[in-house]
Amino acid sequence: MRVLGIDPGSHITGYGIVDSDKGNLTHICNGSIATDSKNSLTVRLNIIFDSIHKVICEFTPHAVVVEEIFYAKNARSAIMLGHARGVAMLCAAQHSLPVFEYSPMKIKQAIVGYGNATKEQVQKMVKAILNINLMPKPDASDALAAAICHIHHYRQGSGVRGQGSGVKNKTLVPDT
Amino acid sequence: MRVLGIDPGSHITGYGIVDSDKGNLTHICNGSIATDSKNSLTVRLNIIFDSIHKVICEFTPHAVVVEEIFYAKNARSAIMLGHARGVAMLCAAQHSLPVFEYSPMKIKQAIVGYGNATKEQVQKMVKAILNINLMPKPDASDALAAAICHIHHYRQGSGVRGQGSGVKNKTLVPDT
Repeated sequence: MRVLGIDPGSHITGYGIVDSDKGNLTHICNGSIATDSKNSLTVRLNIIFDSIHKVICEFTPHAVVVEEIFYAKNARSAIMLGHARGVAMLCAAQHSLPVFEYSPMKIKQAIVGYGNATKEQVQKMVKAILNINLMPKPDASDALAAAICHIHHYRQGSGVRGQGSGVKNKTLVPDT
Repeated sequence: MRVLGIDPGSHITGYGIVDSDKGNLTHICNGSIATDSKNSLTVRLNIIFDSIHKVICEFTPHAVVVEEIFYAKNARSAIMLGHARGVAMLCAAQHSLPVFEYSPMKIKQAIVGYGNATKEQVQKMVKAILNINLMPKPDASDALAAAICHIHHYRQGSGVRGQGSGVKNKTLVPDT
């Protein structure tokens, strides 16, 4: 099973791919999609979508994992974060990949062992678990952590369900 | 000039198209993209993207207008709204259409004459301005209002600039 974790952000979107074969985890790649805040939001969203599209085409993952978000510093940053996350999820859907979501607490528990771990602790544990030489950048590390969390839950058969990308209830309603 | 206004929402996304020819406005169409909350967010985003894509393909607008958003009831609804808005803007970008944004106050001023107008006042004025027989639904009406606002500003030559969809600064950075 090959899992793509994505950590969407309005400025930097991290991604990371992990393979799982009978419990053995292999780090495939990780990276960051950086967008210049001088560019318009439209251009930045296009860059995020296009970059994730290329990662999916190159590495052909079987599932996509994103962190659940319920809060943000303020409404404005929540909206901006939502834009990037929506585009990332859409990209997965357009590739017919199931999308799984886990809370930040569940991801930290899966990686470090407790839900209140710091970003640095997650980063170090991701590096150790995947036996990566270079420390992954924070956003890429969060993306890898999300992928590892999904693999753990999947192996434990915890009944986690992905969001299918099939369109069942299409309702474009032209009013006039 | 043909303008597509979009009023993105996590449940209902309104859209409306207005033509402008030497100051004469013509209503082309309006409608709502309704998504079932029983469906996953991924499926709903796919429906929004696909529906806007079809509207753009059918009516070939020259520009897309969305309302600026700076606030929401809470962070959760802001994030959800951001998802839909991001997908709508991405769709415009993928069709190489410029995207224009106006504050809710500017849109209300352009339609009703003052920035604190109610949703119902906007709805009635949109119906009157465009000489529509049936009252457009609230979300579709807001979308038409955004389109009319853009046409007003464009005609006044107020120096409003759209967000180009050209990708100038692509920075997909594979870290490892």
